[in-house]
Amino acid sequence: MRCDVVAVGTELLLGQIVDTNSSWIGEHLAGYGIDSLLQVKVGDNLGRVEAVLRSTLANADAVIVCGGLGPTHDDLTREAVAAVMGVELRHDDTVAAVITQMFASRNRYMAANNLRQAMVPVGATVIAQTRGTAPGLICPVRVDGVDKVMYAVPGVPHEMKEMVERAVLPDLRQRSGDTSAIVSRTLRTWGESESGLNERLDALIARLDETGNPTLAFLASGWEGLKVRLTAKAPTREDAELLLDQWDGEVRAVVGEHVFGVDDETMESVTLQMLRSRGLTLGLAESVTGGLVAGRLTAVPGASDVVRGAVVSYASEVKFDLLGVPEGPVVSEAAAAAMATGVRRVLGADVGLALTGVAGPTEQDGMPVGTLCIGIDDGHTVATHTVRVPGQREQMRQMSVITALDYLRRHLAAAE
Amino acid sequence: MRCDVVAVGTELLLGQIVDTNSSWIGEHLAGYGIDSLLQVKVGDNLGRVEAVLRSTLANADAVIVCGGLGPTHDDLTREAVAAVMGVELRHDDTVAAVITQMFASRNRYMAANNLRQAMVPVGATVIAQTRGTAPGLICPVRVDGVDKVMYAVPGVPHEMKEMVERAVLPDLRQRSGDTSAIVSRTLRTWGESESGLNERLDALIARLDETGNPTLAFLASGWEGLKVRLTAKAPTREDAELLLDQWDGEVRAVVGEHVFGVDDETMESVTLQMLRSRGLTLGLAESVTGGLVAGRLTAVPGASDVVRGAVVSYASEVKFDLLGVPEGPVVSEAAAAAMATGVRRVLGADVGLALTGVAGPTEQDGMPVGTLCIGIDDGHTVATHTVRVPGQREQMRQMSVITALDYLRRHLAAAE
Repeated sequence: MRCDVVAVGTELLLGQIVDTNSSWIGEHLAGYGIDSLLQVKVGDNLGRVEAVLRSTLANADAVIVCGGLGPTHDDLTREAVAAVMGVELRHDDTVAAVITQMFASRNRYMAANNLRQAMVPVGATVIAQTRGTAPGLICPVRVDGVDKVMYAVPGVPHEMKEMVERAVLPDLRQRSGDTSAIVSRTLRTWGESESGLNERLDALIARLDETGNPTLAFLASGWEGLKVRLTAKAPTREDAELLLDQWDGEVRAVVGEHVFGVDDETMESVTLQMLRSRGLTLGLAESVTGGLVAGRLTAVPGASDVVRGAVVSYASEVKFDLLGVPEGPVVSEAAAAAMATGVRRVLGADVGLALTGVAGPTEQDGMPVGTLCIGIDDGHTVATHTVRVPGQREQMRQMSVITALDYLRRHLAAAE
Repeated sequence: MRCDVVAVGTELLLGQIVDTNSSWIGEHLAGYGIDSLLQVKVGDNLGRVEAVLRSTLANADAVIVCGGLGPTHDDLTREAVAAVMGVELRHDDTVAAVITQMFASRNRYMAANNLRQAMVPVGATVIAQTRGTAPGLICPVRVDGVDKVMYAVPGVPHEMKEMVERAVLPDLRQRSGDTSAIVSRTLRTWGESESGLNERLDALIARLDETGNPTLAFLASGWEGLKVRLTAKAPTREDAELLLDQWDGEVRAVVGEHVFGVDDETMESVTLQMLRSRGLTLGLAESVTGGLVAGRLTAVPGASDVVRGAVVSYASEVKFDLLGVPEGPVVSEAAAAAMATGVRRVLGADVGLALTGVAGPTEQDGMPVGTLCIGIDDGHTVATHTVRVPGQREQMRQMSVITALDYLRRHLAAAE
């Protein structure tokens, strides 16, 4: 089955907004074994939206069109879809009532044009709106004697995603005649390159290729780590989960030490939870990362029961005076160790984690760009580690965050 | 003139990489008055790339195709372009010599397939490669008796951008027969909404609409502020700059207090430069932002001569014990003032900037989500300010960074 994607909005063509919707949809279609071979951006122009829908439907079985469902005269997706179907728009009383109710419940005045969103092509099924005011539309259409379908969903990402998951993907699956369950699980890793993981998992991948179920894919995600995604297909969800459990175990048997989390877990949430479950608080001493470790940890709701705070010791004197680092080269394991011990004391934390390094643009104290020294003081032992982090400045800094947290994760796991 | 964009790469359709190239190109084409009405993503499939190029060229005068110029068998843009031109590929000795030389100078082994990048469609002009190994191509093509053109550029963003600016945009301009200079200037603002700025600039915009030169556009850029872009067209670059100077002045006469920078300047670079020029160092006390202010300031190369460091006082006891904040509600102007004074002392900085607030998910000390209290101690005066910042958690935190830096900017400017 092939489902292409059309993103509607002049602002997308002008580069005022980057179209991330079609990428997200493509990723999720692939997870269901549905091909997405063409993804198009087109402006708010009725003739062009209609022409793109027609040309896309000539080759695909289905098309998801995002955006252009708002209340203004620029929002023309409803009209374009109706034109391709060869039908009129009708006023849907139920949709109108929901929109009116949404404005009333928020105590907001509703301009008359908002009811444009209650116009539905004759023959289309409404996907009820739960987040915004625009409903989605499932629009069957016959093209050259073949039954095909258009799905219209809002362009606001969180509205689009909710509707695609709730209504569009299940409808596509039903049309494909495939009633089996498809379930994915993502193992999140850090500490080994894609080619390195690939090589170590070579024999396992060869076995998977024979059955084709589950499938395994690598997704490089920058400073969020390298994801290994398993996608299983089975008669029921439970069967698919069992298959995933089995192969999850097989993957971990080979590269388990690099797996830090599953699905939505992040290095931040995992290290916070490890500290929390051990009843430990954390203090950070950051030089090269300038506060990014603390910034990313505190982005996680509930971080406050673990994170005491941080000392960003950007100037060397702050390292010496506040953290008690001995005078000497500040990009060194000795300095990292002293920073960890110092920040543990200054912030009254159970564990001190310190980072010092060289982000560039130029080397420092004779140490090349990319050098990162990490220190940990957990009150029992002081551990240090030096590593070469790739990238220039911002990439190096962001990579340093996950590298240091991973080192902390391994340290805590080993201390059990 | 109309120039559409084709991005080639299966990874774009699968959502493994988001296509930002076409957005960037669309923005730059618009700056030159060139329409981009369709932007398409297509996978690494020769037939489909060729079909997309043909269908795009049926409606557009030109098409820029990004990606698929690498050395592997998946890189098929050269073949597709040659097929549309109806010509063969030839081996270009000059390009091959450059590629061989690049590998030699980096002491890297060159696999034979790298010379695939030296294959050029007969009749195409080479855009010399300066950053990667892949050259770009300018490929004239006659479609239904009309002369059109395809530009092939690499998919790696920094290689693509350099080639588009150096070779593609000038070539497009020449083909359009328009020899005038088009120059843009972006005034970066913070402190007023888009509708608010629009309203205040109403009369000025009406005058601009009469002449159409320069044009004025608002670009909302989240926590990078709201951009006001002026684009002027004139016989020479100097004339265009003069026109921009005049209207830049007119815009500032109305909303100048909100303009913090021009073009590539950021709130971070501007505040750092203001402090630097006054010979002042900065210390940060962050609670709600958890280190993000320090993280963003230190992302600017050379920040180290201004930024002493930061104390992230996430736990209340760190505020009390290390920064000397009096016990009491920690989301308050009194606490922000004490944090600013405390961090100035602890880090030995000339200026202390403090942030305390509520990022959510729930209210704190009876203060609603979005409350931000800012404190400044410059050694002479202590200033505080409370503001309501929009957004939930991460958006609120990021908005707080630029809000606090803008407050510091205005404080420094007023102290002159």
